[in-house]
Amino acid sequence: MITTFDMLLDEDAVFGDITSETIIPEGLDAESKVIAKEEGIVAGLNYLKENVEKIGLKVTLLKRDGDSVKRGDSVAVIEGNARKLLLIERVFLNILGRMSGIATATKRLVDRVKRVNPNVRIAATRKTLLGKLDKIAVTIGGGDPHRWSLSDHILIKDNHIALVGLEEAIKKARRSSFVRKIEVEVERVEDAFKAVDLGADIIMFDNFKPNQISEVVKLFEARGLRDRVLLEASGGISEENISDYAESGVDVISIGALTHSTRSLDFSIDTTPKRN
Amino acid sequence: MITTFDMLLDEDAVFGDITSETIIPEGLDAESKVIAKEEGIVAGLNYLKENVEKIGLKVTLLKRDGDSVKRGDSVAVIEGNARKLLLIERVFLNILGRMSGIATATKRLVDRVKRVNPNVRIAATRKTLLGKLDKIAVTIGGGDPHRWSLSDHILIKDNHIALVGLEEAIKKARRSSFVRKIEVEVERVEDAFKAVDLGADIIMFDNFKPNQISEVVKLFEARGLRDRVLLEASGGISEENISDYAESGVDVISIGALTHSTRSLDFSIDTTPKRN
Amino acid sequence: MITTFDMLLDEDAVFGDITSETIIPEGLDAESKVIAKEEGIVAGLNYLKENVEKIGLKVTLLKRDGDSVKRGDSVAVIEGNARKLLLIERVFLNILGRMSGIATATKRLVDRVKRVNPNVRIAATRKTLLGKLDKIAVTIGGGDPHRWSLSDHILIKDNHIALVGLEEAIKKARRSSFVRKIEVEVERVEDAFKAVDLGADIIMFDNFKPNQISEVVKLFEARGLRDRVLLEASGGISEENISDYAESGVDVISIGALTHSTRSLDFSIDTTPKRN
Amino acid sequence: MITTFDMLLDEDAVFGDITSETIIPEGLDAESKVIAKEEGIVAGLNYLKENVEKIGLKVTLLKRDGDSVKRGDSVAVIEGNARKLLLIERVFLNILGRMSGIATATKRLVDRVKRVNPNVRIAATRKTLLGKLDKIAVTIGGGDPHRWSLSDHILIKDNHIALVGLEEAIKKARRSSFVRKIEVEVERVEDAFKAVDLGADIIMFDNFKPNQISEVVKLFEARGLRDRVLLEASGGISEENISDYAESGVDVISIGALTHSTRSLDFSIDTTPKRN
Amino acid sequence: MITTFDMLLDEDAVFGDITSETIIPEGLDAESKVIAKEEGIVAGLNYLKENVEKIGLKVTLLKRDGDSVKRGDSVAVIEGNARKLLLIERVFLNILGRMSGIATATKRLVDRVKRVNPNVRIAATRKTLLGKLDKIAVTIGGGDPHRWSLSDHILIKDNHIALVGLEEAIKKARRSSFVRKIEVEVERVEDAFKAVDLGADIIMFDNFKPNQISEVVKLFEARGLRDRVLLEASGGISEENISDYAESGVDVISIGALTHSTRSLDFSIDTTPKRN
Amino acid sequence: MITTFDMLLDEDAVFGDITSETIIPEGLDAESKVIAKEEGIVAGLNYLKENVEKIGLKVTLLKRDGDSVKRGDSVAVIEGNARKLLLIERVFLNILGRMSGIATATKRLVDRVKRVNPNVRIAATRKTLLGKLDKIAVTIGGGDPHRWSLSDHILIKDNHIALVGLEEAIKKARRSSFVRKIEVEVERVEDAFKAVDLGADIIMFDNFKPNQISEVVKLFEARGLRDRVLLEASGGISEENISDYAESGVDVISIGALTHSTRSLDFSIDTTPKRN
Repeated sequence: MITTFDMLLDEDAVFGDITSETIIPEGLDAESKVIAKEEGIVAGLNYLKENVEKIGLKVTLLKRDGDSVKRGDSVAVIEGNARKLLLIERVFLNILGRMSGIATATKRLVDRVKRVNPNVRIAATRKTLLGKLDKIAVTIGGGDPHRWSLSDHILIKDNHIALVGLEEAIKKARRSSFVRKIEVEVERVEDAFKAVDLGADIIMFDNFKPNQISEVVKLFEARGLRDRVLLEASGGISEENISDYAESGVDVISIGALTHSTRSLDFSIDTTPKRN
Repeated sequence: MITTFDMLLDEDAVFGDITSETIIPEGLDAESKVIAKEEGIVAGLNYLKENVEKIGLKVTLLKRDGDSVKRGDSVAVIEGNARKLLLIERVFLNILGRMSGIATATKRLVDRVKRVNPNVRIAATRKTLLGKLDKIAVTIGGGDPHRWSLSDHILIKDNHIALVGLEEAIKKARRSSFVRKIEVEVERVEDAFKAVDLGADIIMFDNFKPNQISEVVKLFEARGLRDRVLLEASGGISEENISDYAESGVDVISIGALTHSTRSLDFSIDTTPKRN
Repeated sequence: MITTFDMLLDEDAVFGDITSETIIPEGLDAESKVIAKEEGIVAGLNYLKENVEKIGLKVTLLKRDGDSVKRGDSVAVIEGNARKLLLIERVFLNILGRMSGIATATKRLVDRVKRVNPNVRIAATRKTLLGKLDKIAVTIGGGDPHRWSLSDHILIKDNHIALVGLEEAIKKARRSSFVRKIEVEVERVEDAFKAVDLGADIIMFDNFKPNQISEVVKLFEARGLRDRVLLEASGGISEENISDYAESGVDVISIGALTHSTRSLDFSIDTTPKRN
Repeated sequence: MITTFDMLLDEDAVFGDITSETIIPEGLDAESKVIAKEEGIVAGLNYLKENVEKIGLKVTLLKRDGDSVKRGDSVAVIEGNARKLLLIERVFLNILGRMSGIATATKRLVDRVKRVNPNVRIAATRKTLLGKLDKIAVTIGGGDPHRWSLSDHILIKDNHIALVGLEEAIKKARRSSFVRKIEVEVERVEDAFKAVDLGADIIMFDNFKPNQISEVVKLFEARGLRDRVLLEASGGISEENISDYAESGVDVISIGALTHSTRSLDFSIDTTPKRN
Repeated sequence: MITTFDMLLDEDAVFGDITSETIIPEGLDAESKVIAKEEGIVAGLNYLKENVEKIGLKVTLLKRDGDSVKRGDSVAVIEGNARKLLLIERVFLNILGRMSGIATATKRLVDRVKRVNPNVRIAATRKTLLGKLDKIAVTIGGGDPHRWSLSDHILIKDNHIALVGLEEAIKKARRSSFVRKIEVEVERVEDAFKAVDLGADIIMFDNFKPNQISEVVKLFEARGLRDRVLLEASGGISEENISDYAESGVDVISIGALTHSTRSLDFSIDTTPKRN
Repeated sequence: MITTFDMLLDEDAVFGDITSETIIPEGLDAESKVIAKEEGIVAGLNYLKENVEKIGLKVTLLKRDGDSVKRGDSVAVIEGNARKLLLIERVFLNILGRMSGIATATKRLVDRVKRVNPNVRIAATRKTLLGKLDKIAVTIGGGDPHRWSLSDHILIKDNHIALVGLEEAIKKARRSSFVRKIEVEVERVEDAFKAVDLGADIIMFDNFKPNQISEVVKLFEARGLRDRVLLEASGGISEENISDYAESGVDVISIGALTHSTRSLDFSIDTTPKRN
């Protein structure tokens, strides 16, 4: 399997690491310590260990995916050929920083909403940059990955409805698969009820304010439909207003910013000659 | 050539776009309008046009890479088979939002430093997520891409020096290539002078404060070395202090945050049946 | 996107088609007629048209995926460079025969069970050879593709339960995703009820006889659980006994033989010089 | 080398095996026993061992490719990380069942014809689904793989002759290579003699009945040509009439059904916690 | 299909053609003339046309593969976007020069031996650098490509014989395939006769002098075996002694130097703005 | 990372090594000795060891890259499964012979010019066949690899200047990057001075005779520009006249023939059963 790590490394060293190949002796062994430069949740260590060991380096993990780290904590030690250690340094840090940044942001939101409503889920979207790795990071941070791709779950959105209408869309979807849930994005409450009648399993409320969601939840309860579907809030959600959404009684809050605009968590690598 | 776009699309539709294939008629034609949801610099349009047209859709660009956009501006129209339009929507927006976010942030910093010092360059680092595309976005925003990869420029960093020493590193580097400049990262001023004596073309000052850089620049001038090398500040630079760095007399300011922690610029796609 | 067609063609012509390149003049144009040699359901035409046109041949479809064909029917005409026509002939027929064979077998079973119970679904398994193409063929034949891969649906099978137990498995699964249904394979009725209590959405009865399934369905009705879960029969199902399963009241009947042991439908290609 | 196994596994676990990753503890070790569920010839074990060991599992083969197995026989034990064992289970069984199914059918036909004529060969065609693996399975079953691809042997078929004529085709073919035999497909006996005169090494008789083949063989003997060429019967051959073909005196009998419509041989995998 | 051209171009422009992208306006059209700088046989034009047109340039061939060219001859014109023209220039010339160099050298040897013996073949070996392209160039020059790869012809060499002996090797080979010829490399005449007795179709005489080959040919004639096998001379053959080999009565002369040490034929590309 | 070695091996054994798989017992172990057949500089051993060990063979190097070898010297021993040893033999020798041939030719030229002028560099061009491997071989031979690709250095050539003019080209190039040198190819001396004025770092003199280069060097000295730029001679350089170029005072002499028309160095492999 050619992984994202492999592809990033191939691109980064397309003609080799000319600095190290020029100045570092071929047989030199060394040791790299991976150190957190700030507080957060570490994510990506298992993935990186597996990938880095494929090229003959030894990785000892000092933290586990999902652990909290603080500034100065060592999270892993990588040992082996010095040129290889320098070769993988930047790709290693880019993935580790990205995934830990996402996990940290996810954890912060999850903690925040859990204080208000322990049953609500924080979910990612498909607004990702590293695809699968971004989703795994959300999971490590305590979030829900939502769908991996266009292939694994039916989500009928505004553009689908604009082309074929809500009713035809849901009817066709219901015939297509017994293993997949059907989710429908709505902009008006009436459409939510219509979608449920037609057999939708999940309703995504696009750009509803927290108080609008609260009202919707009450309407669903009033009609005895609250247990038949999952309700998801999406669009316009931020760290500031997420607690209000959590209080609204919704089941799932999905946030694109977790993966399209996350700040990387800062790590560095110190490489020193191998002690014998 | 298999591009990043192709790979992201393949992953996103590994077994097809099951929603559209289920509910959208096979032969239906439609039209997608790509609309900016906020103000910024648009980047990635040429790249996306070339990639999207490979699968048989027609793209008309209404803006050019580097143009300013404001909320509500249409930047492109994509026409063709409705299933294909829906298939590429998310990957299209992810790349457009990412690249435009980077270009916008770069442009803001470039504008800021140009007011203080029109000769200073804002440069990216290798702290990227989409590699080449991130670098192109920096360029569109008016920045300098720095090195593309480990293969195209010699940059001797702290970990290299820890293993073989400054002197041996630069000597070997100088023998290796006549087409590549040699850059050396230093943490102390003495090392900068030593590096220049040994033939370095560029000195990167790691984590120097603006006033420390100012002093270094004066020392270089005093020794008559100012024209022989380029001076780069790196580490600890933010939107707040970048003007101070620009005033320090340094040639290049490189900022990892441009590409490792950028906020995506928000765009959306509206798809409607084709008017005849 | 590199498709299965592309990969099969690359393998088949790794050093070119030496027969045609040796004996067919380079610029010769010709026309290939694709003809059914036996009765069945045709499947794969859209897929093949898209792939074949990528290399510069023109394909006119005379039938559509899902249509019935009888011996002698022309299903498509391919026009263009004679060497290219001969190059793709075998891969074209292999995929067309395979997919049509699967669609034909699926349709036959679907028709059979519909006479007994119009609500039952015939589903494929992951016992495939051409992966996605096999599943698409099942769909064209009126069946349900079940899960595409290990990534899109949670199915807890005997080997999972042997390792961690039914209860732990379902509990963890329920926490993992709100968009995915949870299916559990059981060998005993008690486990089915336990699984439903724990939150399973679908129960797969492994190697149950039709009368055993009937009893299970009655027990589910008796306990008021019939509407809360989907029931699937799997294992030991054949053309002979499938009507009995359909009568049992089960929702889904899945059959590996549809894709692991299907007979290809016979097609041939006649290539003649292009008439001007 | 990226093998068919790798590609099938990548597709099957594009975003990982979500069931196992959710419910099986990360460090758990286990053991999988691969068991034959019916009688036949096992094939694919060497190939699978090599591929499975690449991802860090240990495979002990209890049978060898070509061995007979009966219901209940263990053919291999795979040990290692439980998640990995569950990850590869289906792809492993799909390839093993496919290859063993082909080897079993080949062996049955080979045994049948050998009783009648020990010198006749049973050969595959290019009507394959897994390409090389199907051909290897035919070989393990005692058959002849025929040509691997369009690149390794010259076979002039009806469509070639329709475009350029028999004579020109064979003349050009003879000039092209001294290492490749030239085979010509004919529908009439006169063409066979003409082909031999022009230098064909092998004649393939398309859709000739056994008694027609017998007559042809006699004519070849009468003209003193029997030792100069190999004669192959192809088309319309089945388990029922294959002995008649073997008696006809032909050298080779090729059968597409061996690879385009084979029944998989049934195997299962039992996974249990590792005994210490 | 990802061709050698594609791979070389991808490597050469991994992050784009930074010179052209920097200095050539994006929409500029231009025209490149491909000109021979010395006399020889041109080869690779068809291959290059097909590959270059895939990226949207138009190629007009002024010569055909196999034509003689002299210094100053234009062999092709390529039109289109100026950046693309400059992008492909070096890869285009590398392949054209390589293939034409091989074709020219082959043609020279073929002409030389034909004067002495019109029936002898000049064949390539597997000592290639660009694999298939080198073989195609040999064919264009009038030579025989010999085997494409390890997969298409059985050639029993010294190292095989050292491991299992001549007799076992040939016996097993004869059982393996009816479509493949069996070639055996020998260092002594006795082994040649033994190999023929065992059923070899081609004998390769390794490092035999021309007069030794002549004697061998006579011995084969004396034993009445001359028509049963093809005789190939290999090893130690050069432009100087090749006529002697041609006179020896051998069927095939194979020469590694054609493809492992060929001089490229010199071509250049002149690019000018598009005339309207 | 899929290397050139992997790709060549995949192509060479697309359906396996049919000779060895047919005649060599599966479990047989053997030993291959790699022997130089002529005098030269060996190159490629590290690369080959790393690639060959990936498939489970053990390589012991008896020489190091850059060492001199004479006829009969063993350079490496490879041990392991006999089929694998035979599988990689030809690809191993092709790469070793190619790289050693280039290193040998480079070393010869380097030695020659060093006698005249120890400061001059011999550089490769992009007229390569195996890309990166050719460049590495030049480096091992003591040469300079010049640019790896179109992405890592700005080289403004005749075709660029024909399209946009010298001045615009250099101005744009200077703005594009602070890490890349700018090289300009000139055909007239005036252009060299113009280029230097505009900021070029390296001037490439195309097809200048040695005495013309000498005069240019004097003019540069007279104008006080000699230390500001590197001067490169390119075009029309051969083993015969290279000493004259070295005497001319130029900094770099680049020669395409090193990589487009090199003679491979001859090596052979002897494989014998493993001694216990």
